[in-house]
Amino acid sequence: MAGSTFGTLFRVTTAGESHGPGNVVIVDGCPPGLELSEADLIPDLQRRKPGQSRITTPRKEDDDPEILSGVFEGLTTGTPIAVLIRNQDPRSRDYGDIKDKYRPGHADFTFDAKFGRRDYRGGGRSSARETTARVAAGAIARKLLAERLGVGVLGMVDQVGELHADIPDPGAVTLEQVEANPVRCPDPAAAEQMEQLIKDVRRRQDSVGGAARVVATGVPAGWGEPVFDKLRADLGKAMFSLPAVMAVEFGQGFAVAEARGSGHCDTLVPAPGKSPPIGTHTNRAGGMLGGISNGMPIVLRCAVKPTSSIPQDRPTVDRDGNETVIATRGRHDPCLLPRFVPMAEAMVLLVLVDHWMRHLAVS
Amino acid sequence: MAGSTFGTLFRVTTAGESHGPGNVVIVDGCPPGLELSEADLIPDLQRRKPGQSRITTPRKEDDDPEILSGVFEGLTTGTPIAVLIRNQDPRSRDYGDIKDKYRPGHADFTFDAKFGRRDYRGGGRSSARETTARVAAGAIARKLLAERLGVGVLGMVDQVGELHADIPDPGAVTLEQVEANPVRCPDPAAAEQMEQLIKDVRRRQDSVGGAARVVATGVPAGWGEPVFDKLRADLGKAMFSLPAVMAVEFGQGFAVAEARGSGHCDTLVPAPGKSPPIGTHTNRAGGMLGGISNGMPIVLRCAVKPTSSIPQDRPTVDRDGNETVIATRGRHDPCLLPRFVPMAEAMVLLVLVDHWMRHLAVS
Amino acid sequence: MAGSTFGTLFRVTTAGESHGPGNVVIVDGCPPGLELSEADLIPDLQRRKPGQSRITTPRKEDDDPEILSGVFEGLTTGTPIAVLIRNQDPRSRDYGDIKDKYRPGHADFTFDAKFGRRDYRGGGRSSARETTARVAAGAIARKLLAERLGVGVLGMVDQVGELHADIPDPGAVTLEQVEANPVRCPDPAAAEQMEQLIKDVRRRQDSVGGAARVVATGVPAGWGEPVFDKLRADLGKAMFSLPAVMAVEFGQGFAVAEARGSGHCDTLVPAPGKSPPIGTHTNRAGGMLGGISNGMPIVLRCAVKPTSSIPQDRPTVDRDGNETVIATRGRHDPCLLPRFVPMAEAMVLLVLVDHWMRHLAVS
Amino acid sequence: MAGSTFGTLFRVTTAGESHGPGNVVIVDGCPPGLELSEADLIPDLQRRKPGQSRITTPRKEDDDPEILSGVFEGLTTGTPIAVLIRNQDPRSRDYGDIKDKYRPGHADFTFDAKFGRRDYRGGGRSSARETTARVAAGAIARKLLAERLGVGVLGMVDQVGELHADIPDPGAVTLEQVEANPVRCPDPAAAEQMEQLIKDVRRRQDSVGGAARVVATGVPAGWGEPVFDKLRADLGKAMFSLPAVMAVEFGQGFAVAEARGSGHCDTLVPAPGKSPPIGTHTNRAGGMLGGISNGMPIVLRCAVKPTSSIPQDRPTVDRDGNETVIATRGRHDPCLLPRFVPMAEAMVLLVLVDHWMRHLAVS
Repeated sequence: MAGSTFGTLFRVTTAGESHGPGNVVIVDGCPPGLELSEADLIPDLQRRKPGQSRITTPRKEDDDPEILSGVFEGLTTGTPIAVLIRNQDPRSRDYGDIKDKYRPGHADFTFDAKFGRRDYRGGGRSSARETTARVAAGAIARKLLAERLGVGVLGMVDQVGELHADIPDPGAVTLEQVEANPVRCPDPAAAEQMEQLIKDVRRRQDSVGGAARVVATGVPAGWGEPVFDKLRADLGKAMFSLPAVMAVEFGQGFAVAEARGSGHCDTLVPAPGKSPPIGTHTNRAGGMLGGISNGMPIVLRCAVKPTSSIPQDRPTVDRDGNETVIATRGRHDPCLLPRFVPMAEAMVLLVLVDHWMRHLAVS
Repeated sequence: MAGSTFGTLFRVTTAGESHGPGNVVIVDGCPPGLELSEADLIPDLQRRKPGQSRITTPRKEDDDPEILSGVFEGLTTGTPIAVLIRNQDPRSRDYGDIKDKYRPGHADFTFDAKFGRRDYRGGGRSSARETTARVAAGAIARKLLAERLGVGVLGMVDQVGELHADIPDPGAVTLEQVEANPVRCPDPAAAEQMEQLIKDVRRRQDSVGGAARVVATGVPAGWGEPVFDKLRADLGKAMFSLPAVMAVEFGQGFAVAEARGSGHCDTLVPAPGKSPPIGTHTNRAGGMLGGISNGMPIVLRCAVKPTSSIPQDRPTVDRDGNETVIATRGRHDPCLLPRFVPMAEAMVLLVLVDHWMRHLAVS
Repeated sequence: MAGSTFGTLFRVTTAGESHGPGNVVIVDGCPPGLELSEADLIPDLQRRKPGQSRITTPRKEDDDPEILSGVFEGLTTGTPIAVLIRNQDPRSRDYGDIKDKYRPGHADFTFDAKFGRRDYRGGGRSSARETTARVAAGAIARKLLAERLGVGVLGMVDQVGELHADIPDPGAVTLEQVEANPVRCPDPAAAEQMEQLIKDVRRRQDSVGGAARVVATGVPAGWGEPVFDKLRADLGKAMFSLPAVMAVEFGQGFAVAEARGSGHCDTLVPAPGKSPPIGTHTNRAGGMLGGISNGMPIVLRCAVKPTSSIPQDRPTVDRDGNETVIATRGRHDPCLLPRFVPMAEAMVLLVLVDHWMRHLAVS
Repeated sequence: MAGSTFGTLFRVTTAGESHGPGNVVIVDGCPPGLELSEADLIPDLQRRKPGQSRITTPRKEDDDPEILSGVFEGLTTGTPIAVLIRNQDPRSRDYGDIKDKYRPGHADFTFDAKFGRRDYRGGGRSSARETTARVAAGAIARKLLAERLGVGVLGMVDQVGELHADIPDPGAVTLEQVEANPVRCPDPAAAEQMEQLIKDVRRRQDSVGGAARVVATGVPAGWGEPVFDKLRADLGKAMFSLPAVMAVEFGQGFAVAEARGSGHCDTLVPAPGKSPPIGTHTNRAGGMLGGISNGMPIVLRCAVKPTSSIPQDRPTVDRDGNETVIATRGRHDPCLLPRFVPMAEAMVLLVLVDHWMRHLAVS
């Protein structure tokens, strides 16, 4: 139990279900003196929420955050920051079908196997709705890292189904490029094709998977703790804690399986002006060596499965294990990727801010 | 700091460097009443250690474990189990070159950036030598899970360079099949080719990457904690905490990016005799839904980079950032994969035993 | 930082200040299937809140809790339970004096020394207002322990100033006896004198200290973890985490300093019907041996200092260290003890429920 | 389970029993660059060990520590420091009596109730022998705090049985004064009487309790985390985690129960030269307000019970709950206090170093 806390020094604890009164996050450990108000949380929450475009679900959630503590006279006080995001009154509906039948590809069965019961309304705690709390916390981390260290984190879609984007230098992509289209893919030509594919898939009452890349720039060398709490390990955990993530890779990723040692290594070179004055030309390692940041951009990539919520009748079982048929009627994203981007950024931000603070304690 | 502890209830803490007096692990939280002696730790330590075959490094380490506490009259007492594995007296040698120069692809630079100093002998704490402690702890977890629950964990090499093994049903592979060849690949034909490739690579003074799969069978439905401590998240962290791992995927893995929701889901079906009596025919999800085990085999796959320790002169920088040339003369594995298998198994075992105990606390 | 989380498996995280929007608690790890509603939280919150009687502060706080998550169809789901207790709109007032001057005996100076700033309204995070969150969480723990194990926790005042109550058998005291008078002292004669003393002290614009006892009955033998997380150690921490507690003792407490070994030990005797069938006649150890519960009532006692908020002009310093004079004008309890009782019970309950769950994981 | 780890950033994990191969401690999180060798650990270990004088047990333990990791070229590297202290071969003896009978006042019964078995040789894990590991870790913390911050921690006996020492200014006592007599009481006249009392008690085959004071000087204002991890709370836990401690008080301690607010507070006064320039004349609060250090000496006091190991026949029960008689024949301290002093210092040091590092992460 007790799996709703993340981080050691910048410690985030969340609560909330899809259709309960609301989602809450407590951020304990945010340093004092950071200017903060609800306005700082809204942009990322807006990027996460449904109904932003024609290719995300038309479900409406207002996602207005309320800061309940930890901020005084516009500045953080060093005490825990609680944020409440109320759920909008969901339209009254009949959940009877989901109550006793297990949707394939969802956590309905496993929650029941674990707890003996579940809040079946809209997925309850297993709904991606819980990521609102993460995104709110991530927005605080984003501001802190940007203001104190110049660290920035940006995600982008680089694959939808068979379509791959061409992103020559992920570290040079801007937020504007990402937000320029509803797919959040900084390759405009690919983005257009991806949008068409998503619409096509929705028309077929189907869904499609994809992949996203996240880049962190400005991270100095030295973050990450040997041996278990490597920066790479905590980033990996962070990504795999997000709904629907089935694969994570850093730098060259799976391609290293085919690599030779003579060609794989990033050669260390002088980097006057950096501290320490050392860098690499290539970045096959994805910004970390031995799990510790090396001063290069941190680059990771995640595969996200197609949502299992599709409006087709499908065979499944009920709670007693009897065969039955289920249809998921709700409004769902035909492709999770565009809204996955801010969630992934939030988790990377939370890992980085925590490791920054862990590193401070020693230096 | 303080990154050398892993797990919540079955809590493992390690210490030790490559060429210091020894490696130590304290396992805190092992239940009482388990029969345990050094003999239980030796098989996995032997699989991990160098010098086992012609394709691993000829370096000799005896790896004799000594249990210092927590076992009385042959049974665990419930108090912490400390295990000491002394390092063999390393041959006296001159480390001067590594001392002031940074080996590319190693953690030399990042450890210095973090700590301002490092034990440069053989990689110090960043050496894979520290995994002896993990493997010893994993062997305790293995025995506990096998005896109390019938859970088994088995790793296997399924790729070396461009060569892929054909493993139709990873869940049916046996330890004997894995151990039948020095590559630890259960496809004998592929194993032979892989062995040739590794020898060839070594002859060229080079190294090669690869990938391994780990399968856990017998895990009941219900392990894993929403939302951050998903079983998938903790397994992902565990794998990424191992040296040289650049990518991790579960079930279908990166292939989900191309999948459609209509085809991806594993259909739930009645499974009389199971508890609860529900299963799936396919296992694209890799044994978890919502990050919680669903009673199917847990299947993951990792990519491991080619070791950066190759006996070629290569450009690099020294501690001051000046260009220089370095050669890594030691004895190193041309392919890490065969010895990676027991390390990966150990980490999967540690995650599973911890989540079993976490689940016990609630049920 | 990050000191607002308590417990390992039944994990409580709080946030909130005295005069901010509200106090929040997230209880992560509560087992599923417990009947729970706001009505279960109200009795303990009512006992804690000010304005209950003529000897507590007349300040009004409604303390209506709202459960935001983790409960569905009247039962806990196993996912985190968030509770929000809004602060009543405090009357608009001038805090200017407290803003720049440090009240003696309060945390004003130390919070500034730590964080460089503080929410000075009513003490902010250092106000006892934050214990509303603890009491709400404790009420959940109380229900769980009572229903699943028959464990009960009861506090009582046994000293106010020089006046000591006569409580021959603390383990036999009932809630009714404690609540029979506004002092929460189960010795009616002493209670009356104490009430007079408190009134007298208030009339003199002063305050007075006291001591409270807490008794836990029904705790089975075996709870507590050697060596650092002894039940005694975690109870000690819990008590010292409450505002104004300056001393804690178990069983005979400080009297053991004068004791002889021949007379101090509780003799073990057969206790047919108990499991295991072993008890003691006396309970000088206070229900624990080696820090692990022995099946006897757990008995502890705390000393609580007189509140430093008294309406007298007193010398102090301002933020720059200059001498000045301060008067604390607000409405405050002349004796903290009556309202301390439910706070202390809550902390004991939180320790016990966590150690119960920790013990479950091993047995 | 898993109660053998202490601290958050300076994290100490111990293992070991009284009569097993040895005791081990892993200190994870010690900053790099501290000069360290076994010689730094020996003085405190010598103070802790038995056989130092005529009033401690004549049992011989050599307590030679071996540093196994984390130190290179005489300096800490920032990686975990493991220390092994082997147990001397205990004389072969018959433990049969203790095996099946429960010594009154010891943890024999509670360990069996918890784990179903125990290492009964000399108390196993519940023996004070495990504090060797704490004392070794504390010696590292002592060196770090002294060198980096000028913080010092000193314990002293101030009560044995009915005899109280006169220590007008505990903060001014020196190590030499404490070590000047075998009782470790800085009041020479009282020390002599105490020594006589202890000898007398031993002659009567009995034991006697006492109390010790610990003072920490040089702690700056600002350490400690609201609300649960108050410095006072973590110090309280630390003390109560030590064997035989039944009561803990800070500053005025239990005397606050009789105090009035008008007289209790320490008046804040200008303290030019301090940073911040604020102090108090009196120190009734014991160096903390709101659980955060205020720059004054931290002063605490513990009561330690008389050892239950006395060589008299006493009634008790066996494992099945049947009445029987037991005699504890071993060599034991008639008064635990002299050897308690270094144990208590160690725990205070571990709390302080951890809170220093936690504070660094925010400032």
